[in-house]
Amino acid sequence: MSEDVPAGWQLDDDRLLRTFTFDDFSEAWAFMSRVALLAERHDHHPDWSNSWNRVDIALWSHDAGGVTERDRRLAGAINALLL
Amino acid sequence: MSEDVPAGWQLDDDRLLRTFTFDDFSEAWAFMSRVALLAERHDHHPDWSNSWNRVDIALWSHDAGGVTERDRRLAGAINALLL
Amino acid sequence: MSEDVPAGWQLDDDRLLRTFTFDDFSEAWAFMSRVALLAERHDHHPDWSNSWNRVDIALWSHDAGGVTERDRRLAGAINALLL
Amino acid sequence: MSEDVPAGWQLDDDRLLRTFTFDDFSEAWAFMSRVALLAERHDHHPDWSNSWNRVDIALWSHDAGGVTERDRRLAGAINALLL
Repeated sequence: MSEDVPAGWQLDDDRLLRTFTFDDFSEAWAFMSRVALLAERHDHHPDWSNSWNRVDIALWSHDAGGVTERDRRLAGAINALLL
Repeated sequence: MSEDVPAGWQLDDDRLLRTFTFDDFSEAWAFMSRVALLAERHDHHPDWSNSWNRVDIALWSHDAGGVTERDRRLAGAINALLL
Repeated sequence: MSEDVPAGWQLDDDRLLRTFTFDDFSEAWAFMSRVALLAERHDHHPDWSNSWNRVDIALWSHDAGGVTERDRRLAGAINALLL
Repeated sequence: MSEDVPAGWQLDDDRLLRTFTFDDFSEAWAFMSRVALLAERHDHHPDWSNSWNRVDIALWSHDAGGVTERDRRLAGAINALLL
């Protein structure tokens, strides 16, 4: 169902993926700092990478071997940072 | 009772206070970054200040007007970072 | 001279002071994370405090005992984060 | 020459690579926060990824298409964080 994939995310290989691009490293790092707070609050952590102004986030539930409600909730909370 | 004040903290003016000193700003900032994660996880946030290698933390519950169990729990979690 | 004090800052007791207010702790922390990067880049660090959504920054040069060009430069760089 | 590769790093596909493992996300994030400060100080940024307690860092100079002195210097500074 389309509601299974939060806005802006792609479902690929049983993971939710989204790429975020910023003006520079400082902006990208500020975003990552907020995602880190969300991850601790949700007790659910991304697989993610950063290169200068770019942040790639993959969300999946290791124990479930795929995307669960926890991933969709974290993806939604990350989206809310951009509003 | 002595168990009301976590090890290393002082009770002053109805707040739990502790000063942490590090080798440099980078170490102090790493500590602060971990405390920020704890604060979000506990949904309870410190009043704190930093000057170079020094971090001063005050914990109290604004709504209760003093120290509550939430402050003692967060103080204990901050202490655990130093182990 | 008025150009001695960057926009939005106050000169008080030989320090540049400014208070920043955000929507919540996460936004305040993202801002602090960017200021930390600036501080390392400028090799000049603020005296600052945070309480939930509020960040108070004081800039002065310890060795000079007052405000110098280094403080004005860092204040300007912090201001630029808000644009 | 062997001195071209800082201790603990591997040279692979013209990049310096090193994996760091910590006790949990909080420790990994504290380390990343310090590396972010170093990156701004060196004006040279890693390609890096994180998964829970693991941080993978790749250093190379995009403009030079390979490893330069800037990468070795940043690798050395990152190593110094672990001492």
